[in-house]
Amino acid sequence: MAGSEHVLKAIGVVRSPVLDPVDEGWGTIESHIVVEPELRAGLRGLEEFSHVLVVALLHGARFEAERHLVRRPRGLAEMPEIGIFAQRAKDRPNPIGITVCPIVRVDDVGVTVTGLDAIDGTPILDLKPYFPVFDTAPNARTPEWVDRLMLGYF
Amino acid sequence: MAGSEHVLKAIGVVRSPVLDPVDEGWGTIESHIVVEPELRAGLRGLEEFSHVLVVALLHGARFEAERHLVRRPRGLAEMPEIGIFAQRAKDRPNPIGITVCPIVRVDDVGVTVTGLDAIDGTPILDLKPYFPVFDTAPNARTPEWVDRLMLGYF
Repeated sequence: MAGSEHVLKAIGVVRSPVLDPVDEGWGTIESHIVVEPELRAGLRGLEEFSHVLVVALLHGARFEAERHLVRRPRGLAEMPEIGIFAQRAKDRPNPIGITVCPIVRVDDVGVTVTGLDAIDGTPILDLKPYFPVFDTAPNARTPEWVDRLMLGYF
Repeated sequence: MAGSEHVLKAIGVVRSPVLDPVDEGWGTIESHIVVEPELRAGLRGLEEFSHVLVVALLHGARFEAERHLVRRPRGLAEMPEIGIFAQRAKDRPNPIGITVCPIVRVDDVGVTVTGLDAIDGTPILDLKPYFPVFDTAPNARTPEWVDRLMLGYF
């Protein structure tokens, strides 16, 4: 089963005022995720949740092992040299982004969210309701560099 | 951009004592995620985190719109009829599973975790460190059926 291949089809697309990737300031961005017409019935009941897990395919990312497998987050000298599976950088073997977004509203064609760190045109692979009992790790620990890195992201 | 297609390649595979899907009791299961040899350097630094977000491709799932687009969670009569994007069922348009798992240890070939709700042989698409500032929604609200459904899952 060495690196089995799988074809996934986008279930929707992001409409965002952000046209080019940025490293910070995503928190106030409002995006509309437009779901494919034949799947829109699948949104029913999502409006009863406050947050949605957005699974995006970061189509602009390019993973090159020699540059991205081990690197300093955002290339910053004050960050440690760590592996791609220990950081959230977008240039990953599979450029999947996972973001917990507050739901602004659910309408007939999709869902409006804030804080989605994905540019206009990003394909969406899945939407999942945020279940605190499942998705929150109350006692999670991180190395100290994480706090320094994430200052200003939202 | 209607339903664009994307080819993803597994970065690893699950080794678990669970050989067939079950609906509950995942919490104590210990699984080993074996990473592809050429990507193992990407694990460096993951051991400093307490939790990892495991992105799995639930290869046994089959989505059929007429059965799964709108349904009662687990087919239970006491659950509401809701869309697939408002529930965590595995039979989704893209059968991606996302689970927050406590890390037991990181070794030279992969990572051992508990609570991974994926059977033996499940392809893994990505591993991400759990960042509380990013992944925790402290004030998340859910409809009341969620608590009833998740009782006993872990």
